[in-house]
Amino acid sequence: MKLYTSHRAPNPRRVRWVMAEKGIEDVELVEIDIMVGEHKTPDYRSRVGVPHVPALELDDGTTISESIAIGRYLEALYPEPNLFGVDAREQAVIEMWTRRCEFYLANPLMLTVRHSHPALTALEAAQVPQVAEHNRVGAEKFMKTLDRRLADHEFLAEDRFTIADIVGVVGLDFARLIKYRPPEELAHLARWLETCRVRPGAKAGA
Amino acid sequence: MKLYTSHRAPNPRRVRWVMAEKGIEDVELVEIDIMVGEHKTPDYRSRVGVPHVPALELDDGTTISESIAIGRYLEALYPEPNLFGVDAREQAVIEMWTRRCEFYLANPLMLTVRHSHPALTALEAAQVPQVAEHNRVGAEKFMKTLDRRLADHEFLAEDRFTIADIVGVVGLDFARLIKYRPPEELAHLARWLETCRVRPGAKAGA
Repeated sequence: MKLYTSHRAPNPRRVRWVMAEKGIEDVELVEIDIMVGEHKTPDYRSRVGVPHVPALELDDGTTISESIAIGRYLEALYPEPNLFGVDAREQAVIEMWTRRCEFYLANPLMLTVRHSHPALTALEAAQVPQVAEHNRVGAEKFMKTLDRRLADHEFLAEDRFTIADIVGVVGLDFARLIKYRPPEELAHLARWLETCRVRPGAKAGA
Repeated sequence: MKLYTSHRAPNPRRVRWVMAEKGIEDVELVEIDIMVGEHKTPDYRSRVGVPHVPALELDDGTTISESIAIGRYLEALYPEPNLFGVDAREQAVIEMWTRRCEFYLANPLMLTVRHSHPALTALEAAQVPQVAEHNRVGAEKFMKTLDRRLADHEFLAEDRFTIADIVGVVGLDFARLIKYRPPEELAHLARWLETCRVRPGAKAGA
């Protein structure tokens, strides 16, 4: 299998982190430089169907895009340590927290960065400061929900590290590009962030 | 089990459609009126944790929000007909198309509606016509990708109806609130939409 990935981009980092947690080393890494548009070439688009990284090319030629679909597929092949849930109830709780982290934290922070970082004008047709501000405010509202959850939970979804934590931390880390820091009063969020950031897997793709 | 649902809202409709396809009739339906803010009451928030519908309350008291997490949980309990994939490869392809339909079709169309429909000012702090337009353009770009896919596939992800089709159709149907119609030249998209809309399950929650 081949993984089309892009150094420092947040969605590929989710997959790289999953691979690091599971010790997966037999997937070939193919670096795609999105800053010069390598994900938009006809060759790449014909393989993946859309101009997105990451994408996993299976040995039968099928290519899977979407970081969470790739992660879940890798979990089927490399079940340990479990990151997506061992039964239907766990899977539902983990998927719920993963999606909440995507929609209400990682995506708004990504838009905050893309609409405010000077070097990322290349990725947007037009940077709109109000979009950055609106999304930062939305993300911080959800950070309070996370902080309450983390007051009595070591990790977001279950009593162990899961894909939900990966999505949350990668989302917050991406915002470091604009030197963003979560509000200081969110002490439980800060504790959880530190716990996750020191895991060896956190360095993969970062 | 209880499903907190809201008539005509698109995310609850995804779950209702899954239930209809599987013939699930032993889940109690609890109607939440989002137009008067029933999803924001302290009672509702204390049950679900966030002001969102749909949410599935399990018999052990756990409550799952997020339509796709709920759908996947219901599939584990009611496996037939399969909507999420029978093996890891199918699951990955279906999850990829489901997520593409969410992020590049359903979400942009929802923003198009929310930033342009006169009756929905209650749901937005401020309606911004440029947001509506930007998202409509983005959704139509992805509709072309779907049209190409549907040129040689009856359904989006596999050779049968899956959750990816539900998410795509529900996204497009929601935009009928503003009398939106996909570009006429997308004939394969129109054919697929018609095929899905005549399924008996399409009426559930619509």
